[in-house]
Amino acid sequence: MRLSKYLMPVLREAPGEADIISHKLMLRAGMIKKTASGIFSYLPLGYRSLRKVEDIVRDEMNRIGAQELMMPVMQPAELWKETGRWEEMGDLMFTLKDRHARDFCLGPTHEEIVTDIARNFIQSYRQLPFTVYQIQTKFRDEIRPRFGLMRAREFLMKDAYSFHTDAEDALREYEAMFQSYHRIFSRCGLAFRAVEAATGNIGGSKSHEFQVLSQSGEDEILSCDQCNYAGNSEFVSEKKGDKCPRCKKGKMIVFRGIEVGHIFVLGNKYSKSMKAAYLNESGKQCHYEMGCYGIGIGRTMAAAIEQCHDPDGIIWPISIAPFEVVVVPLNMMENGLVETADRLYESLKQKNVDVLIHDKDERAGVKFKDADLIGIPIRVTVGAKGIAKNQIDVKMRHQKNEHQIPLDQAPSEILKIRNELFRKVNSCP
Amino acid sequence: MRLSKYLMPVLREAPGEADIISHKLMLRAGMIKKTASGIFSYLPLGYRSLRKVEDIVRDEMNRIGAQELMMPVMQPAELWKETGRWEEMGDLMFTLKDRHARDFCLGPTHEEIVTDIARNFIQSYRQLPFTVYQIQTKFRDEIRPRFGLMRAREFLMKDAYSFHTDAEDALREYEAMFQSYHRIFSRCGLAFRAVEAATGNIGGSKSHEFQVLSQSGEDEILSCDQCNYAGNSEFVSEKKGDKCPRCKKGKMIVFRGIEVGHIFVLGNKYSKSMKAAYLNESGKQCHYEMGCYGIGIGRTMAAAIEQCHDPDGIIWPISIAPFEVVVVPLNMMENGLVETADRLYESLKQKNVDVLIHDKDERAGVKFKDADLIGIPIRVTVGAKGIAKNQIDVKMRHQKNEHQIPLDQAPSEILKIRNELFRKVNSCP
Repeated sequence: MRLSKYLMPVLREAPGEADIISHKLMLRAGMIKKTASGIFSYLPLGYRSLRKVEDIVRDEMNRIGAQELMMPVMQPAELWKETGRWEEMGDLMFTLKDRHARDFCLGPTHEEIVTDIARNFIQSYRQLPFTVYQIQTKFRDEIRPRFGLMRAREFLMKDAYSFHTDAEDALREYEAMFQSYHRIFSRCGLAFRAVEAATGNIGGSKSHEFQVLSQSGEDEILSCDQCNYAGNSEFVSEKKGDKCPRCKKGKMIVFRGIEVGHIFVLGNKYSKSMKAAYLNESGKQCHYEMGCYGIGIGRTMAAAIEQCHDPDGIIWPISIAPFEVVVVPLNMMENGLVETADRLYESLKQKNVDVLIHDKDERAGVKFKDADLIGIPIRVTVGAKGIAKNQIDVKMRHQKNEHQIPLDQAPSEILKIRNELFRKVNSCP
Repeated sequence: MRLSKYLMPVLREAPGEADIISHKLMLRAGMIKKTASGIFSYLPLGYRSLRKVEDIVRDEMNRIGAQELMMPVMQPAELWKETGRWEEMGDLMFTLKDRHARDFCLGPTHEEIVTDIARNFIQSYRQLPFTVYQIQTKFRDEIRPRFGLMRAREFLMKDAYSFHTDAEDALREYEAMFQSYHRIFSRCGLAFRAVEAATGNIGGSKSHEFQVLSQSGEDEILSCDQCNYAGNSEFVSEKKGDKCPRCKKGKMIVFRGIEVGHIFVLGNKYSKSMKAAYLNESGKQCHYEMGCYGIGIGRTMAAAIEQCHDPDGIIWPISIAPFEVVVVPLNMMENGLVETADRLYESLKQKNVDVLIHDKDERAGVKFKDADLIGIPIRVTVGAKGIAKNQIDVKMRHQKNEHQIPLDQAPSEILKIRNELFRKVNSCP
């Protein structure tokens, strides 16, 4: 992408409305724009990162055999009345009437819709188990929308739902999702913990949150300093300094977490209330056992920024960076230099590197500030001095020092550096 | 994908609600499920085709330099009041209030939102032109939702918006979109015409609809029998049998069209009413010239079915087929046969062929009926008789006859057939 043609309105100062660092940096980097309280547009740069998170989630969901579908945003009240959640959700749910005065809500979650699909089509144990998911815009009328994408009123979610003949099989899928979530958040370059948690108004018998380790999270997490046990303070009875209930050796310590995922064993709460049943091998009617599994796509992106930034801006993990490489020609007035930068840009594109060229007529200092702010992992500088020596300068966003690469080997060397960064993210536990 | 694990609830009969062939076939093939009047879930099979249309559109939008973003579904009334469309749209727009009684609509289109983005960030002629687009769920409270995905109340659209310093440049982008739309609908395998049309409540000075040639369309189109001129009967003054106003030779004939795309030169209608302006080279404030460009993603998919089906079911163009190849093992009780089919399925997957295996324990007749109904372009049958002769049977969905292929060359031969089908779609004018 050529920055001269790109809608990326960077700001030197963050607007006063921004309350946490990810919100400030996304506004400053021209990634998002507020349209109303808790309602944002993703500008092209922000949308690129969002899509990369989405694609990692999709890839890992497909890997465990979950099937993608798309359920509606507008949901008829009747389905929500069957489960009693029409009243239970109260003001948290956006509701509206159509021209015939029929009641609808804007989906905050899709248990009712997916259970309605299942009861229409799944009559036999032979059709079970199956897992479906969607990546879709969700709505919650938050009392106090805040923290930018962290607590928005319109937001992108991955939500998956699984259907089973028995509790044991539901637990098997829960475990598969548990592992899948570890792969997803590792591939997004995050430091996180799976945390025992309460089930809230989703319901069910067992649940884990996936919490990103961050100072700016809204959740208080107790975790063991010796084993990998952790629990949400709202859920576990232990307090800071108590002995770990699992390993019985370590002590519980505290961190503020950002919840990026939440998985639930639902039991038959929804299938029972919605009379959703199948015939088992003996011909007996049974309610499905279910699970549901959510990931906040925009929130995952914001959490990555909370976890990785410095005073100059964002430091993206390469897997979810809007671009992998930025090429900076130092002086747009020198034709030879611009041509060299252009050739490098084109040959990186040829190699399927996701590359941006900062081809605006601006001072070197401004270009470096832009590149740091938007957090591109690899910066390649093409300057007159370097060209005279047949070399270019390469700098990692997360490191201080530049190093030089011979010009004629530049595309293949940069590709190597990029692949190495990817390897590090993908080889996370 | 293994059909035994796939949520694809085929029906022998279409539900009574279905009023046109695409609606009937999509319900019968287990592609969609109605949730409320004009509101559908895309089941996994339907979602696969939807994504393929989406990906073609995305590819062609990126090719002409349009930048993808994502604007919100919920739009504040204030923006719509600036342009006067809050009142103008009337009951066609879904509206709702948040917990603070603020008015919102569910976006039927995004001119107001995108113009608000532009006026926030685009102050100089140097930042123009640019074109953005999104692929997003839209809402219209239709008086009479009907024809399945054709006239739904919640539907997936690609909407693009362009901003320019002058009318001439806006026309240049309009032309680029005009060509891009030709490529998109050709790649989707459709027979269509670009048609002069009225601008309606979008406004502007010039517009073309892209109309798929079909008996079940809602629009009456007059087209010349000699040149490529065509116009919507609501817009042009000619009647059936009149002389063509362009070539002055041909006669106007009539077909009923399905509108799958619509492009507009908007002028400064939105930039003026929303006080959205930039400074030109002389430092004078000018309103942007704009264009907007829509494609109905779900409707394009439905139009392909209207255009290509037979009494047995859908006949997908390979580019938007949910799967490219279906492997049918004739008898699930014969281990050798099942293993051969499995190996073929796996090696096609290895070659990145989008392949489904019909591995349910059902009679051959049922499997063939399923394959025809869901319209997979290439059917590969693995039977005991064939294996004895070291061969398999290949049949195109759009042809009557099967032909035989040696088993050991099957994966590479099937790949060739698939690539040839793609070449035909992609080489459309």
